[in-house]
Amino acid sequence: MTPALEQLQKQLKQLPGIGFRSAERIALHLLVEKPSRLPELVAALETAAKNVRRCAVCGNLSEEEHCPICADEKRRNGQVCVVEYVTDLAAIERSGAYRGRYHVLHGKLSPIRGVAPEDLNLGALLARISAGEAAELILALSNDVEGEATCHYLTERLPRTGLKVTRIGFGLPSGSGVLYADAITLKSALEGRRDYS
Amino acid sequence: MTPALEQLQKQLKQLPGIGFRSAERIALHLLVEKPSRLPELVAALETAAKNVRRCAVCGNLSEEEHCPICADEKRRNGQVCVVEYVTDLAAIERSGAYRGRYHVLHGKLSPIRGVAPEDLNLGALLARISAGEAAELILALSNDVEGEATCHYLTERLPRTGLKVTRIGFGLPSGSGVLYADAITLKSALEGRRDYS
Repeated sequence: MTPALEQLQKQLKQLPGIGFRSAERIALHLLVEKPSRLPELVAALETAAKNVRRCAVCGNLSEEEHCPICADEKRRNGQVCVVEYVTDLAAIERSGAYRGRYHVLHGKLSPIRGVAPEDLNLGALLARISAGEAAELILALSNDVEGEATCHYLTERLPRTGLKVTRIGFGLPSGSGVLYADAITLKSALEGRRDYS
Repeated sequence: MTPALEQLQKQLKQLPGIGFRSAERIALHLLVEKPSRLPELVAALETAAKNVRRCAVCGNLSEEEHCPICADEKRRNGQVCVVEYVTDLAAIERSGAYRGRYHVLHGKLSPIRGVAPEDLNLGALLARISAGEAAELILALSNDVEGEATCHYLTERLPRTGLKVTRIGFGLPSGSGVLYADAITLKSALEGRRDYS
């Protein structure tokens, strides 16, 4: 291993989901197998770093001041869906199940990992609500302790108006049965039971 | 998704072992969570692309004309271990089980994937052998059809001298039992049985 190769593998290994073996494989792929891809990757990284920023309204990634969703006049106003990460927003968009607006927190509260309210994109959300942007706030945060804590913190700070606040449903994922669900999922599913008649 | 983000995800997705989700996660990691890592990664990629090349002797990656193994006077001469990839060389080095020299083919013959003899670092190996560099050639190629074909092609072209040619053993991996081995491994293991007395 040469120093430049070691340094490259170290950088790759810091990326999420990349372990020692993947870092080695990717480094050799870029240096031996497909060296033409390396400058393309560097260019893509540099262009993204230069052009991509946060949407001034919702925190989604954007190359303009307002992201394509905030700028889209055809999206439904009045509904704001709060998500933890841009990846969550992308997943909901792919589902095609939602046509309203978003707000990306860029994380969730976590005392253990040292994520405090000021680390999240919360102030802008409260400002949007105070400005009357939302009739319904949909909390699409994780079904875990940190997601719960973030929902709790946020709702405590909402202005006491007629704002409707909902949280997305928890339970069995599509295609799955009771037999395969863990106890906490079943508890969520029972608590989240709905009239069926 | 913005165009620059899409382009970055497309580049990341072309890397080995990186699927759609990982590409998305890595792109957002570099743009939102840890933006300071992006220029470090770009620098590491550019330094590696600029400095790392193939060793003129064995094909291993190097920042000098000769790689650290070829340049190491303490390594045993006379043994040349032939491997497919630099990653294989690195794995054998980590095992600490070998102190001789190497030769990296940068692939194995594969008509299906369009890998022909001239795509491999074979000429340099034959030249090393003709120059009398090796008393033993150890074929550390894969236990599969392509590895077998590469071994066969190579040995057909070796000069008819007193060169000893061996191939690494196949059989049960360390820690594994017969019960868990597939039929082809068991066949290899039986064919590769050794005196035990």
